[in-house]
Amino acid sequence: MNAQLLNVVSEGFPASRKVYRGGTLHADLRVPMREISLHPSSGEPPLTVYDSSGPYTDPAVDINIDAGLARLRAPWIAARADTEGYPGRRVQLQDNGLAEGAKGAPEFPVRRAPLRARAGMAVTQLAYARAGIVTPEMEYVAIRENLGRERAAAGARDGNSWGAAIPEYVTAEFVRAEIAAGRAILPANINHPESEPMIIGRNFLVKINANIGNSAVTSTTAQEVDKLVWAIRWGADTVMDLSTGRNIHTIREWILRNAPVPIGTVPIYQALEKVGGVAEELTWEIFRDTLIEQAEQGVDYFTIHAGVRLPYVPLTVNRVTGIVSRGGSIMAKWCLAHHRESFLYEHFQEICEICRSYDVSFSLGDGLRPGCIADANDAAQFAELETLGELTQVAWQHDCQVMIEGPGHVPMHKIKANMDKQLATCGEAPFYTLGPLTTDIAPGYDHITSAIGAAMIGWFGTAMLCYVTPKEHLGLPDRNDVKVGVITYKIAAHAADLAKGHPGARERDDALSRARFDFRWQDQFNLSLDPDTACAFHDATLPKEGHKVAHFCSMCGPKFCSMRISHEVRAEARSQGMQEMSDKFRAAGAELYVPVPQVRGS
Amino acid sequence: MNAQLLNVVSEGFPASRKVYRGGTLHADLRVPMREISLHPSSGEPPLTVYDSSGPYTDPAVDINIDAGLARLRAPWIAARADTEGYPGRRVQLQDNGLAEGAKGAPEFPVRRAPLRARAGMAVTQLAYARAGIVTPEMEYVAIRENLGRERAAAGARDGNSWGAAIPEYVTAEFVRAEIAAGRAILPANINHPESEPMIIGRNFLVKINANIGNSAVTSTTAQEVDKLVWAIRWGADTVMDLSTGRNIHTIREWILRNAPVPIGTVPIYQALEKVGGVAEELTWEIFRDTLIEQAEQGVDYFTIHAGVRLPYVPLTVNRVTGIVSRGGSIMAKWCLAHHRESFLYEHFQEICEICRSYDVSFSLGDGLRPGCIADANDAAQFAELETLGELTQVAWQHDCQVMIEGPGHVPMHKIKANMDKQLATCGEAPFYTLGPLTTDIAPGYDHITSAIGAAMIGWFGTAMLCYVTPKEHLGLPDRNDVKVGVITYKIAAHAADLAKGHPGARERDDALSRARFDFRWQDQFNLSLDPDTACAFHDATLPKEGHKVAHFCSMCGPKFCSMRISHEVRAEARSQGMQEMSDKFRAAGAELYVPVPQVRGS
Repeated sequence: MNAQLLNVVSEGFPASRKVYRGGTLHADLRVPMREISLHPSSGEPPLTVYDSSGPYTDPAVDINIDAGLARLRAPWIAARADTEGYPGRRVQLQDNGLAEGAKGAPEFPVRRAPLRARAGMAVTQLAYARAGIVTPEMEYVAIRENLGRERAAAGARDGNSWGAAIPEYVTAEFVRAEIAAGRAILPANINHPESEPMIIGRNFLVKINANIGNSAVTSTTAQEVDKLVWAIRWGADTVMDLSTGRNIHTIREWILRNAPVPIGTVPIYQALEKVGGVAEELTWEIFRDTLIEQAEQGVDYFTIHAGVRLPYVPLTVNRVTGIVSRGGSIMAKWCLAHHRESFLYEHFQEICEICRSYDVSFSLGDGLRPGCIADANDAAQFAELETLGELTQVAWQHDCQVMIEGPGHVPMHKIKANMDKQLATCGEAPFYTLGPLTTDIAPGYDHITSAIGAAMIGWFGTAMLCYVTPKEHLGLPDRNDVKVGVITYKIAAHAADLAKGHPGARERDDALSRARFDFRWQDQFNLSLDPDTACAFHDATLPKEGHKVAHFCSMCGPKFCSMRISHEVRAEARSQGMQEMSDKFRAAGAELYVPVPQVRGS
Repeated sequence: MNAQLLNVVSEGFPASRKVYRGGTLHADLRVPMREISLHPSSGEPPLTVYDSSGPYTDPAVDINIDAGLARLRAPWIAARADTEGYPGRRVQLQDNGLAEGAKGAPEFPVRRAPLRARAGMAVTQLAYARAGIVTPEMEYVAIRENLGRERAAAGARDGNSWGAAIPEYVTAEFVRAEIAAGRAILPANINHPESEPMIIGRNFLVKINANIGNSAVTSTTAQEVDKLVWAIRWGADTVMDLSTGRNIHTIREWILRNAPVPIGTVPIYQALEKVGGVAEELTWEIFRDTLIEQAEQGVDYFTIHAGVRLPYVPLTVNRVTGIVSRGGSIMAKWCLAHHRESFLYEHFQEICEICRSYDVSFSLGDGLRPGCIADANDAAQFAELETLGELTQVAWQHDCQVMIEGPGHVPMHKIKANMDKQLATCGEAPFYTLGPLTTDIAPGYDHITSAIGAAMIGWFGTAMLCYVTPKEHLGLPDRNDVKVGVITYKIAAHAADLAKGHPGARERDDALSRARFDFRWQDQFNLSLDPDTACAFHDATLPKEGHKVAHFCSMCGPKFCSMRISHEVRAEARSQGMQEMSDKFRAAGAELYVPVPQVRGS
């Protein structure tokens, strides 16, 4: 499967160079960034952008899917001397949904014994942060968030962060303090040393997640690894493997060993497969075993729908679309069938103990999120949110990192209430929302209906946005859907960063706009989120190389190019001493050159 | 060209029927709507939706592009007895950018003498509204806005309209009053009787505009008519013909005679063609003649960049992207070259007199709108807006209808200020914005970067949103780009209607969501903005007819379909008397069934 994948993913981006920055506290850090070089005529230095694509875009790295990525964090984990190797749980046929004697997907060729915390130890980044330890992971994300800036951004801040406290310059100590306060998480399972540390929190860059995973109906192992690499190429900061068919264990192993980003899962999916899809037959023991299975593999965050409590189920009965979270509906069914409280809720402390032993972060699932505009912000949704707030406190007591999942489908005027309520209820634990979709009437375009809501809630303080693809509600996304979903969510996240006034967020906008005004077409493409598409769209009508320096495009043609004319205006204005006129005009309260209009005489 | 077009455009929508509603004051009105019928199992009546597609989707109408559409409003205009026919201006070769003896595009086969107001008469909808007259056009839009509702919407309103005054039920008198107050416009040139009346105002449904038009570089007459019909099929409420190459006059004639929606233009484009593209050579006389040429053809609204005044030009000198409006840059260049005030500004009263004689509405152009995030809300932009406010008053003095164009590129946190300032400065004249784009970094996806801003500013009060296609900044949109742009903007406009609490706006969302929850796949497709795409996406993985009634899709597969499970939960909950439990739970302040969690014992 190797060669086929390599064809696709190992290219760098145009005019781009992968660079690494070292640490101060931890000198051996190599924090990846991408430098986009500009045409010499610009007189501008390269622009540095955040790089989630991992070693795949580094020409110096020999990618071998069968071996997996380098174990970047292994020495850091070892140096902490708080973990121990052990044989680990034996993989069983049912982990892959296979019957006795069945043959599944090819296993990942390398097998290593897992690590776990030594008895009594907490190996979470939260535990270290509380102990005042700045881990290599923390310094790594500090450098990463600064995007190569050496010091605080100069100049006035422009934005409205709705009460967030985004610093001018991210220090490793700031990262530590944010994690210690529970306001940010750094998902980093000790059994996923391949991951490049990243941080999710309201005072950092807004992140995005891409969901991949097969379903019982379609797709193969190779396709899922390919989607992973493809998703991070375009900007996914984390990836959730939502596989639900056969070979779940095996697919996950291939994904984890080749993933430079944190991987999240919804363990109830696999647990349900183990009981043949019959929700009532789920047990705590099977679920617990599945958590350990996945923690040993290296899953970085678990969606746990422990807020779907028995008494909340009736609140969903009169909804237009009931319960639309898969995990939520499974747990609701279990609760009703047994007429007892959710085992996730009742055993939450034991779940915490597991997470604490591997540093699996919680993503407390919103099993009762609204599935349509009509159900937004209803009693069921907010009852669950209160419980997620309680569980956050429990997880924190166990030194576990926590983020909170959020909706869903919400009209624009009800979005801010979601953020405000989450902040108030969940002690400022990071919010991680799916969209929200702002209308239900456009299946086929739900990346767009949801990008509107995602940008807004990102601005209001959501730390990570889970993407929605054009196939939402209709089918399993393919490779192209994954790309469209990721780019759309990079737009939403970046629009949010700009509006929050994140220092440096505007640098890319400004560089691209200068390139646009200077007719540096190639720079404009290279600086964009998707250079291939930008260039292809331009070339659809003006394909010649010469058009890449033309002072117009086919949209307006040469005579009507406002930017071309604007250059003439600027030259003319300068030759007429307009700069002085402008200064005078402003100095005089912007009234100096405004005569009474002749037309008003009548 | 006829046959080729008919292939494309004359189909209706799936499960849809074109219906017409009559008037009360004006019994002969036939106001078009589309009824989408639902599967009998739903027990629901057909859903009525707004229909901008014109006679093209009416199987009872024999479309003949060479003859043009029926002259719907001709008898209403005649009945007012305030217009007169006259020979009209002679079409000249230069109107089409042609040299002596050149052959241009085929002329529209039918030629009629134009109408104009009789001496001293004002034939604008504003003049009638002020005189207390409820025109057939006004009753038409009242019926149209109600979408078939016979009376005020029942139940509590849900939304935040930011101070707008959206009624539960639109009466013809309300329409009249809104037009009289200048808060809404009804663009309806007396020489465009083919147009189906529509209204643009903050207290009505949010409208969208699609730009079409050739450029010097590409596209033909046939393509532009095709784009018109295609754009309105998907929901464009008005269309601007921004042609700038040759055959401008002829293309516009074909468009107008076949356009059931108001057509807008930017007359300075054609005027510039007439002087060989040299801005300095523009004169008031040439511009005036162009206005009359276009008014006689039936253009419903003119973008006039009369706010680009000489003293404002210096304010743009230090911008990152200067002046990005084509009309704005042309006028700025003219002003500087002559070092005198804009002839549009100086002759604004004469322009008003022309508009008054044909009922051409003003779309006061924002020639100094920001072209990038860095330039948003700057001194140049707001200086121009002040002038647009002054000119609004002048136009109103002449009984002319006015809307105000707005940006452009604006980060989210600066959007609301645009709306607030426009309302305050321009006397609540309707705002008509281009996007705004909320980031500059995604050329190729600017329909999305701008849909975010468009939805927000629509919510805040913008009356019409000018679409942006994926080709923005890169090239001339093709047919598919037009469709994607229109659907994207229908999403933004509808999201805004929902958030404003427009009565009835949620009906389509709710009907679609119920279809989704009931696995009425075909209903879900039929109710969506783009049934073809929704169905194709579903069928990409589950093509069989049987899958259209399956209780799952390929996204999650049968075992994990939350909606399927949710039905079981609902049945189970009901059998357990959960409804009573739910009622008790709510009655007890939602605490009754919430025991102290066992996990919290420690």
